[in-house]
Amino acid sequence: MLSFEPDDDRYIAELTEYVAIPSVSLDADRETMLLAANWLLARLDFADARIVETGGHPAVIGEWMGAPGAPTVLIYGHYDVQPTGDLQEWITPPFALAVADGRLRGRGVTDDKGPVYIALEVVRQFIAQEGALPLNVRFLFEGEEEIGSPHLSAYVLDHAAEFAADLVISADGAMWRPSEPSLSVASKGLLALDIEVVGANRDLHSGRYGGTVANPVHALVQILAGLHGADGSIAVPGFDDGIPPLGDVEEAEIAAVAFDEDAYRTELGVDELFGQPGLTTLQRLWTRPTLEINGITGGGSYTVIPHRAAAHITCRLVPGQHPDGVAAAIDEYVRAVPVPGVRVTVTFEKGAVPAYTIAPDHPAIAAATQALSEVYPGQAVLLARIGGTLPATVLFEEALGAKTLFFSFSTADELLHAPNEFLRISRLREGMRAWEGLLRLLAAGEHRLAPVLR
Amino acid sequence: MLSFEPDDDRYIAELTEYVAIPSVSLDADRETMLLAANWLLARLDFADARIVETGGHPAVIGEWMGAPGAPTVLIYGHYDVQPTGDLQEWITPPFALAVADGRLRGRGVTDDKGPVYIALEVVRQFIAQEGALPLNVRFLFEGEEEIGSPHLSAYVLDHAAEFAADLVISADGAMWRPSEPSLSVASKGLLALDIEVVGANRDLHSGRYGGTVANPVHALVQILAGLHGADGSIAVPGFDDGIPPLGDVEEAEIAAVAFDEDAYRTELGVDELFGQPGLTTLQRLWTRPTLEINGITGGGSYTVIPHRAAAHITCRLVPGQHPDGVAAAIDEYVRAVPVPGVRVTVTFEKGAVPAYTIAPDHPAIAAATQALSEVYPGQAVLLARIGGTLPATVLFEEALGAKTLFFSFSTADELLHAPNEFLRISRLREGMRAWEGLLRLLAAGEHRLAPVLR
Repeated sequence: MLSFEPDDDRYIAELTEYVAIPSVSLDADRETMLLAANWLLARLDFADARIVETGGHPAVIGEWMGAPGAPTVLIYGHYDVQPTGDLQEWITPPFALAVADGRLRGRGVTDDKGPVYIALEVVRQFIAQEGALPLNVRFLFEGEEEIGSPHLSAYVLDHAAEFAADLVISADGAMWRPSEPSLSVASKGLLALDIEVVGANRDLHSGRYGGTVANPVHALVQILAGLHGADGSIAVPGFDDGIPPLGDVEEAEIAAVAFDEDAYRTELGVDELFGQPGLTTLQRLWTRPTLEINGITGGGSYTVIPHRAAAHITCRLVPGQHPDGVAAAIDEYVRAVPVPGVRVTVTFEKGAVPAYTIAPDHPAIAAATQALSEVYPGQAVLLARIGGTLPATVLFEEALGAKTLFFSFSTADELLHAPNEFLRISRLREGMRAWEGLLRLLAAGEHRLAPVLR
Repeated sequence: MLSFEPDDDRYIAELTEYVAIPSVSLDADRETMLLAANWLLARLDFADARIVETGGHPAVIGEWMGAPGAPTVLIYGHYDVQPTGDLQEWITPPFALAVADGRLRGRGVTDDKGPVYIALEVVRQFIAQEGALPLNVRFLFEGEEEIGSPHLSAYVLDHAAEFAADLVISADGAMWRPSEPSLSVASKGLLALDIEVVGANRDLHSGRYGGTVANPVHALVQILAGLHGADGSIAVPGFDDGIPPLGDVEEAEIAAVAFDEDAYRTELGVDELFGQPGLTTLQRLWTRPTLEINGITGGGSYTVIPHRAAAHITCRLVPGQHPDGVAAAIDEYVRAVPVPGVRVTVTFEKGAVPAYTIAPDHPAIAAATQALSEVYPGQAVLLARIGGTLPATVLFEEALGAKTLFFSFSTADELLHAPNEFLRISRLREGMRAWEGLLRLLAAGEHRLAPVLR
């Protein structure tokens, strides 16, 4: 067993330093982003690390390959953070790490600076205390995760050999909720599109022209209303094609998860939950695709017939759905709605991502479950599915042939992307102990990773 | 016959002075508004005129009652103007009257400074050349027409005796199109409302919450889609209640109006016109109510379930519809749409206005038709209906028991409310000659107004 600090003082001091670098990928200058990248670089002094150009903000890569014959893992994370949003909403300045009530508060502390720090501290202590890691480790920390990783795919595909690994372990992500340890075994895919409806060549006076020309808002709401049934189910023909029915085992697993609908409802401030009938809330959240109108806009002025209306839509996809097939189904549906007098355009965004799964009996899940069980004795490890989308998983599977294990000690309720983002301090040493266990278990014994790639 | 100037030089010089006062009721200071009011006051030196407080921008009122036994008319207009909008879009500065191609260009020149100037010049010439007017004339020029006349109703109702008249003649309004002289015999009413749909207490991550809570945009489009049938007809039960069927005479009158659908369509840039089936475009425009979604908004960000969505709607009403009845029908329809998990609010704006009509055989229409025929020999005077709403007509009918004749020499294509607003110079002397004829005809002979009020 590695020996970690008896208290959190050094960890908090070092995280304070890291969080103080405002590495907001959306708008920080190169110098600021390099400060954060160099901060990581300094901690990878044992790993032949360097800063590499990707076409956008640089990435930090490295490797320690001193365990020949042992499996190789790629540790992934990011050093960029979200914008602060309205500074007025922050209790304390976002880049000055605050300690209170067992929590660290600051932009990026839980997404993803703290979780990356935990992983790095563990590998550093292996080197410091044992002179070696139990397996080979590669590192990839990007600086553009919060802006959609626009250069990551090309970089990883171009340098696949340098990242070759038997498993990717992501220090990004979050446990589902704070009440028990959990691992994600599935995440949904994502398909985004815009529907634009254009009528006349300008906004028209609703009195002087009313009754003679089509109103694009009327046409758009006709199109959008047909996307769902009144019961909340998705009504686009072919949208569900390929989705296997919920299996008995899956159903039993989900049914076994304690989920307090009343608390959930109250927390969201709604009178009732809503969605496709015949399924439980958790079944819908974890196993069903969504087609969500994220935004709608058109007109606005007092008495015009607007000349344009538009909606932005994203679909969260589940295993069995292919983004192209879903896009075709939506396109066909929209084209079939009769809307005389207007022009309708459907534009699908590039970069659609299918759903991702890792088998519950994958050695990585088995090892991670055991590692978490040892840190949280007496608590069952929940195998959760997440409704969010993790494009990197699909990329790593495609480029490296490796599954991704999410092993972050962030928790989904820690105000990620919002003002007053925080990380529970207890997660620091819990996370380090768990990472230590995970790496040892993947290297040897019952849950040893099969080193298929070398 | 009065003698008018042989050319337009003096008229243009005086209008240049009047247009130069930037009396934008939306945001001008009191001093500027008073400059415009005083400019009118000076031209009413024969009419016992004064500036009166209304609670907002002042009004200019006056009267010349030197024709005992003759009918009395109230001449209405306004001295305020619309904001300029984007100055970049103006060919010449908006408050510097420009003369080019037979047009005067400047903010307010056709709405309503030019048309009011025409009326005033005629009554001034009656006094100057004949020492008297052929009938009694009262004047009411307000300074808040372009902001919805918020204080006009109360003022007119409180001072009804001072405005008592057998007919109101409005120098505001516009002829339907430049191709022939026209008079309005009907205008539509107006009812405005907002529908707001609220779901959760905040925007939610569409992955982390998708499939569990209602999306207010989904609910709103369900509600809005049912407002119209796919064929463009209004589908709200009870909306049409009280509207008489189109009579044979009315149908024949409308059918007799030359209307080039292709030119109209091309001018609007649409492939086809659209509206309730079974009616011609002009029948729909002139005789059918509308229910127009003027604006819609909700969400916007990339992958959220928005927590709020809203639409602004206005209805143009026709004779037979009462705003309260239509509001009740819409409210009932909206309440009947099942939208679980969200809260729906329908808010009707105050100040709804029913439709207005003046009988085609009213003496004012007869006199105005003859006056126009004499100025435009050989051209039939079109009896047009307008899709727009003229709240003052309803006010004058209610407060004074008098019908309103629109007798403006503005034309609807002269970019009212838009950049580069203009007035055709030829309308100045045509308008003066027509006003002279109208006042004489209303005072004596076949089309004499019955002086019911005195």
